[in-house]
Amino acid sequence: MSPIQGTRTGGRSARVQRSVHAAVQELLGQRSRSELSVPLVAQHAGVTPSTVYRRWGGLQELLSDVAAERLRPDAPPEDTGALASDLNAWAVQYLEEMSSSPGREYIRDVIAGDTGTANTGQCCGYAYEQVSVMLQRAADRGEPAPDADQVLDHLVAPMMYRILFDPAQITPERVDALVHELLDDQHPS
Amino acid sequence: MSPIQGTRTGGRSARVQRSVHAAVQELLGQRSRSELSVPLVAQHAGVTPSTVYRRWGGLQELLSDVAAERLRPDAPPEDTGALASDLNAWAVQYLEEMSSSPGREYIRDVIAGDTGTANTGQCCGYAYEQVSVMLQRAADRGEPAPDADQVLDHLVAPMMYRILFDPAQITPERVDALVHELLDDQHPS
Repeated sequence: MSPIQGTRTGGRSARVQRSVHAAVQELLGQRSRSELSVPLVAQHAGVTPSTVYRRWGGLQELLSDVAAERLRPDAPPEDTGALASDLNAWAVQYLEEMSSSPGREYIRDVIAGDTGTANTGQCCGYAYEQVSVMLQRAADRGEPAPDADQVLDHLVAPMMYRILFDPAQITPERVDALVHELLDDQHPS
Repeated sequence: MSPIQGTRTGGRSARVQRSVHAAVQELLGQRSRSELSVPLVAQHAGVTPSTVYRRWGGLQELLSDVAAERLRPDAPPEDTGALASDLNAWAVQYLEEMSSSPGREYIRDVIAGDTGTANTGQCCGYAYEQVSVMLQRAADRGEPAPDADQVLDHLVAPMMYRILFDPAQITPERVDALVHELLDDQHPS
């Protein structure tokens, strides 16, 4: 199973999605987000507003979809030869991306406009897949390792919680400490 | 220091805030949130729409403020006589409240409409204060205890991450396991 799946490429539905997503991206590069509207996005995408309303419901739901796609990792995590350094390199990059101004904007969009849990679940799924790749490498090397849910709970969750609620408290040094605490718990006592 | 601070009670500014917050609460009880608007809220609160725009900026920012106030704990955590059971009782209740449909709505509102980090920081501050009360009791009893940031990172953060991104994965049993993992790490090895 490939951990990184592309968007579907076939059919009219996929073409509409691509052009509407691209229009949102383009408009976000040109204007403040408060200026965005469904009619404006539709016009730029070359579709009718009712196509957008029918498919997404409204602007907030559309922004959530676009953000979930933008947060999709574009490569598997770097293979540094050991689990501790794999997790550290990945987590520091994750923190940097997610705590940046656009990263925070995307996370907020994903959460604010999610209907049900499709888009938030997709974001959690990205982290789970990236972590699983690193854990499989560790298993192949015979390294002791936590399971993916432990990594989510004790490394990804603290990063995301601080990014959303308390950004001053999360630094690359703190990420490094979280990785070491997590892996120290794996050693037989 | 009291961990629970009330809203300021004096002055015109506080009166406006109370009546506008109350109007939002009342309207949310009667209508779907998509029907809310600044003019409607202002009318119910007996203020002009421009008062609301001037003070809050817009509806999303107002909803964020109201949500941050609604998430304020109304009592210190129960004193059960031991840190493990204090944390467990508090965390299970926190999970129940935050993962409920209104709880999730409030968290989303806090995040979506926060200008800067005032309201999200306030929510993190509530958790920090409640946790600190339990840790101070543990210290008074001579129990070994993690510090408040460790409790935030390894108990509150996993709950909030799952509530926002992966609600099926967090249960009272999982909370119990998180509490025990956290406290087991405190015992001298």
